[in-house]
Amino acid sequence: MRTSSLTDRGKKLKTTTEKDQAKRGNSGGSRGRISVVGIGPGSLEHLTPKARSEIENADVVVGYGTYVKLIQSIIKSGAEVVSGTMGREVERAKIAVSKAKENRRVVMVSSGDPGVYGMAGIVLEVAAMEKADVPVEIVPGVTAAKAAASKLGAPLVSDFAVISLSDLLTPWEKIERRLEAAASSDFAIVLYNPQSQGRIEPLAKAYEILLKHIRPETPVGIVKQALREGEGVTITTLKEMLTVEIDMVTTIIVGNSATKVVNGRMVTARGYDLLS
Amino acid sequence: MRTSSLTDRGKKLKTTTEKDQAKRGNSGGSRGRISVVGIGPGSLEHLTPKARSEIENADVVVGYGTYVKLIQSIIKSGAEVVSGTMGREVERAKIAVSKAKENRRVVMVSSGDPGVYGMAGIVLEVAAMEKADVPVEIVPGVTAAKAAASKLGAPLVSDFAVISLSDLLTPWEKIERRLEAAASSDFAIVLYNPQSQGRIEPLAKAYEILLKHIRPETPVGIVKQALREGEGVTITTLKEMLTVEIDMVTTIIVGNSATKVVNGRMVTARGYDLLS
Repeated sequence: MRTSSLTDRGKKLKTTTEKDQAKRGNSGGSRGRISVVGIGPGSLEHLTPKARSEIENADVVVGYGTYVKLIQSIIKSGAEVVSGTMGREVERAKIAVSKAKENRRVVMVSSGDPGVYGMAGIVLEVAAMEKADVPVEIVPGVTAAKAAASKLGAPLVSDFAVISLSDLLTPWEKIERRLEAAASSDFAIVLYNPQSQGRIEPLAKAYEILLKHIRPETPVGIVKQALREGEGVTITTLKEMLTVEIDMVTTIIVGNSATKVVNGRMVTARGYDLLS
Repeated sequence: MRTSSLTDRGKKLKTTTEKDQAKRGNSGGSRGRISVVGIGPGSLEHLTPKARSEIENADVVVGYGTYVKLIQSIIKSGAEVVSGTMGREVERAKIAVSKAKENRRVVMVSSGDPGVYGMAGIVLEVAAMEKADVPVEIVPGVTAAKAAASKLGAPLVSDFAVISLSDLLTPWEKIERRLEAAASSDFAIVLYNPQSQGRIEPLAKAYEILLKHIRPETPVGIVKQALREGEGVTITTLKEMLTVEIDMVTTIIVGNSATKVVNGRMVTARGYDLLS
């Protein structure tokens, strides 16, 4: 058993791993558990075997409708499917926890990786709040940022920052501060949710901030539905980026000072000596 | 055919997708191609089917020895394996390109995702420099950051910055500037390569910078060999982090001001109203 102690605000706490928790959860003959599963960009060829097996063996699959549809074909027949609309995250987490407490094997699906703007945090919080004695496992996946980057070339191969432009959960002032910080210290920058709920103001404001610090001719990649149906890939420049169609399912990657377009691909040079 | 034009330093360039390049590459009856494949954290259950199929069908597999070993069991018999030592990235990229030019199907393996401190960029650059008319595809994978985060809980569920402490390719001044920027604007922070080549000075300096801006009791997760053999997971605080054993294969995740330890897991709260 791996455990580690930590001191947080003066209290000694124990960290246990999923294995320990699974042991505990199963000790009473219960199979109730939650897997928060990253389904990756959406096509099954980018779904990990671990994530696939969790979905295939689930008694209950909970998730936002669009994501559930992407993995519908591998849900076992007879499994209960609870699909909901965007913006009902807390409700979905509560359903997942209550189903697991009924000894059911629950999968919560999240697009990309559940730990990046996904359901991992809220499920852990709700499970703790409801004192649910069920193991919660987080199963990582390929993120939208990495899917988009792979289509563009290699824009994120050096240090990068990931920022969501949605101010539903984060105050806009904080988002601005992060944009300023990332742009002024030469990070490559990934922008998630460039247009939350159809609002274009956040993107227009972000554009102004980026242009204050970053050369206008810096390459910018704009990827819609990366690695799934309806994919669209554009490489443009920071200056021109607002002329490209951008919607909620678009990921934007802004290069750093070493990013260039090589043979039609966006590549951030890392300082290797190519003539060595 | 999807194409998009872009203006970079005044020149009109064409962006083509892998599909176009594959078409072009195959038009002469050639099968020569390169896939730069992310093998994820290392165990086969986190390797995507796409990555697996590329490896299984490769005539030549090129990669750093440690990573090649992790996927040895799925390399087809008769395939040529070129494994090398750390720090010979340009050489490996040149080998991959030259084998593809000989009409062979080449896989370059990279741990995690090839676009995050991996081989994607250097292979694209070398292929362009050598004017190799072979398609280069980047196949994304689960990164070390996401693997580590999944074991810790959900530390990266809001905005985050990824910084490597290795100054082999990036000047230390730039790394410091990025640390300052990320720490002072409340990003969660992932530190890669905390000890490059056994040097502990970069980590000690990073620690000082982080402590200038971040509360000492902020949770910090330290994960060694995430999701592969020899895994070790520790949750501690920023103040205490240097008391934990840290080596080259360790990923460190520093929380932001909303990160807490919930039921032994590290969770960055996103502002949901749990009582809704």
